[in-house]
Amino acid sequence: MKIVLIGSGNIATHMGKAFMHTGHQIVQVYSRTLANAQALAKLLNSTGTDSLEAVVDHADLYLLAVSDAVIPEVAAQLPQELEGLVVHASGATHIDVLDKFRHAGVIYPIQTFSKSVDLELTETPFAVEAREPADTSTLITFMSAISNRVFEGSSEQRMAMHLAAVFANNFSNALFQVAYDLLAQHDLPFDLIRPIILQTAEKVQNNEPRAVQTGPASRNDQNTINKHLQFISSNPDWQSIYQKISDLIVKRKENNSEN
Amino acid sequence: MKIVLIGSGNIATHMGKAFMHTGHQIVQVYSRTLANAQALAKLLNSTGTDSLEAVVDHADLYLLAVSDAVIPEVAAQLPQELEGLVVHASGATHIDVLDKFRHAGVIYPIQTFSKSVDLELTETPFAVEAREPADTSTLITFMSAISNRVFEGSSEQRMAMHLAAVFANNFSNALFQVAYDLLAQHDLPFDLIRPIILQTAEKVQNNEPRAVQTGPASRNDQNTINKHLQFISSNPDWQSIYQKISDLIVKRKENNSEN
Repeated sequence: MKIVLIGSGNIATHMGKAFMHTGHQIVQVYSRTLANAQALAKLLNSTGTDSLEAVVDHADLYLLAVSDAVIPEVAAQLPQELEGLVVHASGATHIDVLDKFRHAGVIYPIQTFSKSVDLELTETPFAVEAREPADTSTLITFMSAISNRVFEGSSEQRMAMHLAAVFANNFSNALFQVAYDLLAQHDLPFDLIRPIILQTAEKVQNNEPRAVQTGPASRNDQNTINKHLQFISSNPDWQSIYQKISDLIVKRKENNSEN
Repeated sequence: MKIVLIGSGNIATHMGKAFMHTGHQIVQVYSRTLANAQALAKLLNSTGTDSLEAVVDHADLYLLAVSDAVIPEVAAQLPQELEGLVVHASGATHIDVLDKFRHAGVIYPIQTFSKSVDLELTETPFAVEAREPADTSTLITFMSAISNRVFEGSSEQRMAMHLAAVFANNFSNALFQVAYDLLAQHDLPFDLIRPIILQTAEKVQNNEPRAVQTGPASRNDQNTINKHLQFISSNPDWQSIYQKISDLIVKRKENNSEN
């Protein structure tokens, strides 16, 4: 397939590499910053442009890998006559945003991408959606060369997956940073907490999270909870997050025991 | 060393095994439930008791591995004349709670223990504290046979480590369960989110969390944030946690850019 990448960020980079490694040709890379377009294009044996009007019209697939916020604007500026499949990769964006194109779809990877962190996509789940069933089949076949875990998911299911990923990835990472800051305040290195972070992630690979929940809230140990809240009394944001998540754990336990 | 385990839960089990495997003798296991004491004692070639008065007085080390809430009560009931070192393993409990004993200390593992999940303790950090410097040395030497990462830490530092572990482990696990429930509501399996959970934990093994923070809040993408909040409008607890952690991420980014 001939592929045009619209965007030069984390997703465009990781997907572009995967497309190239599975034998496809990246015919063009667009970014509003020409240097970024050219840098990624160089990596992918392609050419860069900063003009949406200059995007070639003969590709088989156009991947819109830009920030969610600008997908509608970029879609509006692309030529309506594109023959190829136009897809975005956004979890929180409805397929309808691509309504003007003859062939529209979504390939949503449930994964976290950082430019600096290399990633094997084989085990990354991809939720695929297209307006036309024939296009769904095309996308499933196409993506199956990259990942073993390609499946069809509706726009609503994709929103649920995206939100689940935000809780499980973005938010837990934000809590890791709280741990980092807490340790730093007491002259302790983050290294102390790295093994438990890995162990926490490994535990839920074979268990439902609630089955391996531990900690003061899970024992409804209000004495320890109060000590903790007191310990971070100078940081109301941390206190409030501590209280809310502890309440959730306590409430969940109570609901379980009632069943 | 001759060791008495006070408690038969996750920590007593994992530590007891580690003590046995490094050549020590578990002379007794106490639990208020005799069957639990006997079950763990059997595993450790030891004998069980449910009477604190029956605890032998000639051991070198007494490990109080009971719930934080009952440590003071159990300490009060143990004979004052114990010659050996009496230690607890609690992150949130001050060493002072063992004041009545001649030799008092703490060995705090920064790790999450589940009975059903086997664990290699070699890389688990242990924060050690004792009232007397000689006892600190004894504990450091003793624990270094089990872990490569034994260090001295004050009661205040231990509280910081414990709280950091609560944020990084207990709370992120609670968020994994939110993800589980969200997916289940939309007929999607938790398996979809397991790779991203592992990737999130692996990313921070070599990075500061803030350096790999992604997601709508990290981009201050209020449009997506509002879509997400709308999507979980039937669950005010989830909404509130979503809002608090997103605010924290946004605020942190703003502080960074000001620097």
